[in-house]
Amino acid sequence: MTTPTLYGYYRSSASWRVRIALAWKGIEYDLKPIDLVKLEQKTEEYRKLVPTQKVPAFVTKDGKILSQSQAIMEYLEEAYPERPMFPKGLYQKAEVREICQIIACDIHPIQNLGVLIRVAGSDLEKRAEWARTSITLGFKGLEGRLEACSEKYCVGNSITMADFFLASIVGNAKRWEVDMSEFPIITRINNTLSTLPEFQSADPFHQPDCPEELRKN
Amino acid sequence: MTTPTLYGYYRSSASWRVRIALAWKGIEYDLKPIDLVKLEQKTEEYRKLVPTQKVPAFVTKDGKILSQSQAIMEYLEEAYPERPMFPKGLYQKAEVREICQIIACDIHPIQNLGVLIRVAGSDLEKRAEWARTSITLGFKGLEGRLEACSEKYCVGNSITMADFFLASIVGNAKRWEVDMSEFPIITRINNTLSTLPEFQSADPFHQPDCPEELRKN
Repeated sequence: MTTPTLYGYYRSSASWRVRIALAWKGIEYDLKPIDLVKLEQKTEEYRKLVPTQKVPAFVTKDGKILSQSQAIMEYLEEAYPERPMFPKGLYQKAEVREICQIIACDIHPIQNLGVLIRVAGSDLEKRAEWARTSITLGFKGLEGRLEACSEKYCVGNSITMADFFLASIVGNAKRWEVDMSEFPIITRINNTLSTLPEFQSADPFHQPDCPEELRKN
Repeated sequence: MTTPTLYGYYRSSASWRVRIALAWKGIEYDLKPIDLVKLEQKTEEYRKLVPTQKVPAFVTKDGKILSQSQAIMEYLEEAYPERPMFPKGLYQKAEVREICQIIACDIHPIQNLGVLIRVAGSDLEKRAEWARTSITLGFKGLEGRLEACSEKYCVGNSITMADFFLASIVGNAKRWEVDMSEFPIITRINNTLSTLPEFQSADPFHQPDCPEELRKN
């Protein structure tokens, strides 16, 4: 048994949501930053570890490696059952996973760096426009879905895994200057979440690999 | 209690994988085809039901609605535990979810119709090229990951949810004429799966909304 390791990047929203889960569960881990801008994920060494060459990746206390944020978080839920990330009801649990996947499948991949480069090359304005449009389109559906299941948080009145996904994708929305006035439910829930210590400590601006000029204390 | 309903489209690979899960579990359901080419998912009626305006969506036997293929499949696993779609071991279960999400997050969304239209408009050749490149890039990572966990099937020697995702994304790869010679593991597993009745009955060419000229019996 060893201390688990998280391979991640401060600004990657998929790494961010796993950091919230680790903070929520109170799991100690070693962080190995992978700088996506310096293409550290493209090295042969990292490919051997993570064939998809994506972050995050997580090495369990038994030394086994996993990638994909939600797979890692579901593993954490089963391996560390304290402070559950799911509600008990079968349907409510499914709703949590649905919200996670609206974000992880419908929104996040379309505005990911790899796609931005394929679509816009080095044209930063075009990249920003594509990302902003992608998130805005996705948030319309997400806002509509949250109308049916949210109360204080994404699904009912308890914090769940869905809230970890929400906080990190709103981070991307802010970065790309999405007009959030269309999305009052997403905004309200995110405002509540951003006051909580687990969410604050996991955000990009509190990570050791965050550049000095963006860093918060 | 009523018969569950699946809203789907014969050629949607996300609908396809849910159909395999329903066949695997032997669950009877009513099919409501949503023709994505005729934009039936964009109607106000469908938006009220599924705010993200995507297929598939599933109405449970209690009349509750869910979208997102993997959320639906995880719900089915919990509501209908016979013929499990996951192995028992904690880490192996996580590996299954990882494979599912490599397909559902890294590959599928990037080659989805909505993105193809944004990238290529009505230029069918450009659409095909984008889709082919996206799947080829994604399959490199998937093939590498399968090297570590596959035996007869994606994870070990039992059929799991990961195989349902694999079969449906290979369907897309064939449609877009991806050169599969680079991906011997994916090809071998898919060839095995495609002989099984649950996989055959769920494929696009056996659906009532499949156009006559593509239909198989």
